[in-house]
Amino acid sequence: MTTARGLTSCSASATAAVLLTSLLSAPAFADDPLASWNESPTKRAVVSFVERVTKQGGPDFVPVADRVAAFDNDGTLWSEQPTYVQAAFLIDRVKALAAEHPDWKDKQPFKSVIENGLEGTWTLSTHQVVEIVAATHTGMDVDAFQRIVEDWLTTAEHPRFKKPYTELVYQPMLELLAYLRANGFKTYIVSGGGVEFMRPWAERVYGVPPEQVVGSSVKVRYEEREGKPVLIRLPEVAFIDDRAGKPDGIYRAAGRRPIAAFGNSDGDYELLRWTTAGPGPRLGLIVHHTDADREWAYDRNSHSGRLAKALDEAPARGWLVVDMKNDWKTVFRFQR
Amino acid sequence: MTTARGLTSCSASATAAVLLTSLLSAPAFADDPLASWNESPTKRAVVSFVERVTKQGGPDFVPVADRVAAFDNDGTLWSEQPTYVQAAFLIDRVKALAAEHPDWKDKQPFKSVIENGLEGTWTLSTHQVVEIVAATHTGMDVDAFQRIVEDWLTTAEHPRFKKPYTELVYQPMLELLAYLRANGFKTYIVSGGGVEFMRPWAERVYGVPPEQVVGSSVKVRYEEREGKPVLIRLPEVAFIDDRAGKPDGIYRAAGRRPIAAFGNSDGDYELLRWTTAGPGPRLGLIVHHTDADREWAYDRNSHSGRLAKALDEAPARGWLVVDMKNDWKTVFRFQR
Repeated sequence: MTTARGLTSCSASATAAVLLTSLLSAPAFADDPLASWNESPTKRAVVSFVERVTKQGGPDFVPVADRVAAFDNDGTLWSEQPTYVQAAFLIDRVKALAAEHPDWKDKQPFKSVIENGLEGTWTLSTHQVVEIVAATHTGMDVDAFQRIVEDWLTTAEHPRFKKPYTELVYQPMLELLAYLRANGFKTYIVSGGGVEFMRPWAERVYGVPPEQVVGSSVKVRYEEREGKPVLIRLPEVAFIDDRAGKPDGIYRAAGRRPIAAFGNSDGDYELLRWTTAGPGPRLGLIVHHTDADREWAYDRNSHSGRLAKALDEAPARGWLVVDMKNDWKTVFRFQR
Repeated sequence: MTTARGLTSCSASATAAVLLTSLLSAPAFADDPLASWNESPTKRAVVSFVERVTKQGGPDFVPVADRVAAFDNDGTLWSEQPTYVQAAFLIDRVKALAAEHPDWKDKQPFKSVIENGLEGTWTLSTHQVVEIVAATHTGMDVDAFQRIVEDWLTTAEHPRFKKPYTELVYQPMLELLAYLRANGFKTYIVSGGGVEFMRPWAERVYGVPPEQVVGSSVKVRYEEREGKPVLIRLPEVAFIDDRAGKPDGIYRAAGRRPIAAFGNSDGDYELLRWTTAGPGPRLGLIVHHTDADREWAYDRNSHSGRLAKALDEAPARGWLVVDMKNDWKTVFRFQR
């Protein structure tokens, strides 16, 4: 081998070594991976958990395949005030479809939604909500519904912050999702919301691909239309991914019990219970909305995201409670 | 920098370069990735499809995220003769539980299964099969059922080949699964069988992790037993992942339409139709059991895996039909 060749191959190898280091080492965060979290016991407890389960040879080490983390969506990853985003979508859908349904202007429950918008939804019964969902979310094939959601998100605006809803996601939680993934976790969304309302944008916004989004769903029917097979959304509930449905939903999707769960309301209670009751190291975390200035302050008496039982039991069960006002340096993505 | 240090770092870099090459290059198959397939038009068509969808800048290029491949299990990945493996499990479960249920020896449909084994199952109605599934597959928590399946597989033996059932998987299909994954595909199982009957071993045997196994399921109920939250399997069907249920099942799990589907019976017809009706390059493939010597020869008149309509329509729809006898060099994994 000539010296020249030796040098060339050494230089190429050096480049390769740099590349390799960046491929094999723990993903390098320029700085703090949880930069939007204040230095608090909550942040330290999260980091300590991740360090313990990833420490090869340590007593709490968890293999990558079992590093499953489940996140509620509404109120945990994005704002659910003044109402759930999907409720805002539903109201807009009723208004958009009203022209095709002239009878709605005199017919409940549509009449009150058309006339009073959000205010008109507070008094709806569950049965009436299901009726509106059936009229606005079903009948089309699954691809068409996805486009409707995508189109709506490009134009809809949050009433208080005048931003697209996908900017109303919590910056500290985006960092937490990324931090967990960088440490070998598979991050799932486990939401009471419609799975097909979340999947079109969850990867772009949260980095969570469609197959890791679990939610409520309607039944679909396979049929042929003009010789082409399609899946038509039916006005029938297939699965409610809320409360006791959440452990069921994530187990059905992942085939494993998560080792970490993140929620903000009593709808996440069973998910937190089931997740943290498993053997080995476990993490349960509740986002407590305590910041009326930057976001909202609510728990026991809220229309959306009522939190009482899970908050009361958190200390005894070892669940972390995020005090949004004091634990978060930044709240929303658009404030980054 | 001293010469010695320079040499050391160059040598380390050279090692890194070798590692890097093996990490970044297309996974190296010592030889032919589909070595158990004879050189035939079927094999060439499969390879051509994979080359087209992975050719960056080519007209048929498909991004990695959309490379979803769906495989039926019974008769496509492992043998379904003389009966479905889960039917053999069910028969053994009835016999194992008979001691706890002395009434079964005089009570149908259990009596005929206890007395006649497999022969006793041919005349069962769907209602009776569901009754036996309810009695043998439910009532326990999901973790306990997983252990029952795992334990059974370590002792059960195929009646003709006297091997564990997990050795009755098709070597050419194992190679196809690995070949697709090596080319950026996410491989899913989409089976009429019970999802929790497959998940405990699908990763070990097929390289398909639990979250990529889609199947039929029973409902579960979250409850607390002795203060611990558990998911109890209920004697109620939640989802039948067969026929029109298959496109529904894979869409529900993956949130995407596959670009390739692999089946062997009319139970896979709708999955093949829906998969191959999408835009862009598509692959549909049917395993036709034509080898009575090495495996079985059957299609239109079989107890398991009846194949008629899908076979008849295959040419017009452009689906490949594997002639097991002539297309496969090796059939089973244990013959490797």
